Amino acid sequence: MSGTLYLLPTPISSAPIQFALPADVIRIAQRVEHFLVEDAKSARAFLKKLGHPKTLRELSIVEIGPAPDAAKISDWLAPLKSGVDVAVLSEAGCPAIADPGASLVAAAHRNGWKVQPLVGPASIVLALMASGLNGQRFRFHGYLPIAAEARAAAIEALERESKSGETQIFIETPYRNESLFSALLDHCAPATRLSLSIDLSGGDERVQQCAIAEWRAMRDDARPPLAKRPAVFCLLA
Amino acid sequence: MSGTLYLLPTPISSAPIQFALPADVIRIAQRVEHFLVEDAKSARAFLKKLGHPKTLRELSIVEIGPAPDAAKISDWLAPLKSGVDVAVLSEAGCPAIADPGASLVAAAHRNGWKVQPLVGPASIVLALMASGLNGQRFRFHGYLPIAAEARAAAIEALERESKSGETQIFIETPYRNESLFSALLDHCAPATRLSLSIDLSGGDERVQQCAIAEWRAMRDDARPPLAKRPAVFCLLA
Repeated sequence: MSGTLYLLPTPISSAPIQFALPADVIRIAQRVEHFLVEDAKSARAFLKKLGHPKTLRELSIVEIGPAPDAAKISDWLAPLKSGVDVAVLSEAGCPAIADPGASLVAAAHRNGWKVQPLVGPASIVLALMASGLNGQRFRFHGYLPIAAEARAAAIEALERESKSGETQIFIETPYRNESLFSALLDHCAPATRLSLSIDLSGGDERVQQCAIAEWRAMRDDARPPLAKRPAVFCLLA
Repeated sequence: MSGTLYLLPTPISSAPIQFALPADVIRIAQRVEHFLVEDAKSARAFLKKLGHPKTLRELSIVEIGPAPDAAKISDWLAPLKSGVDVAVLSEAGCPAIADPGASLVAAAHRNGWKVQPLVGPASIVLALMASGLNGQRFRFHGYLPIAAEARAAAIEALERESKSGETQIFIETPYRNESLFSALLDHCAPATRLSLSIDLSGGDERVQQCAIAEWRAMRDDARPPLAKRPAVFCLLA
């Protein structure tokens, strides 16, 4: 019998691990000894916080990086073939969602090996739940273009798209949050609703949703501070 | 100071609650005494499993139904105004995602009350993580049309859409799963990939992903049994 490929979410904030993962998920993670991880350093910190019964030295922690090399996948997954469980971890949140991991999962399916996703923090879902915008239909875009003109065009396209009632979700690297926020205020219609979810699950968590016109009129100190904090944007025209 | 509107996910399977919710989330839920719930019966069963320190009789459990009445929202949220916390619960999974709750959250934002989403099971995210399909960009459609012709047109449209690399996610009521599955085999191209996630987090959990051509060639007993089980479909052309 083959091993199981676990998809193990990791915390998205500095809150205690007991705020991020169910106790039974922690127990499963404590039994796994083979980890395929986006980033070795953050994975080691996570496994320490998890209270893994083995020392880091006794565990196999293999870094797959942000763009896993397809040629290495079959070696990485080899333990599964001999009945040994493997867990995939991204740097924060759910592996394979806005993060690497999908190519490993696809390979496991091709081989008929068991794949088991585990419950944990998914910033996209937390942001959507807390946005007050339509959660019956939604679309996740990842990152928008960086160049001003291309970004403006993307914003206008997704605002148009959302007129059907479909919530549009996207993210940005923290140091570019302010600039994306300004672009949204510049290019969206006054009545379009925008939700900002900042530092989800963390000590500075803040979720705020209102119309573009209200965001424009708001004093800077009434807004959640965006700079250098993880943020998820939800938009609905 | 106002109370907090918690968005409290509930288990999506009969597995123990410790497999679904982080210990700190369980602790928060045990402190709340006002619950706005999609379905009172399942909410009571959940609160018992949760080991809430108060008896069900001492708690306020108000049923908001699958389509909350807008005229009642301000009464429902009144405790928040006086500093009392309120939690929104759907029948299973995350409130406000493919489930009621968003209109309550929107009202809380209009009043400037604190909204806090909590970590728990989201079948859409678990299914996508385990699908091995693209998790960098995806779209959730909810339910497809039921009538054969409209459903075929919807399937063809989302298969076309997914050629851009965007994974398409949709659900069906359990007793119609088999019929949706047949329609997908009938209307999609042989190379299109389809993932079925059945009874996520439950004892009969099974996730399987392959090309439409492989699904077509598969013996019935090699496929996960779909009838009457909760399922999430992910598709990528």
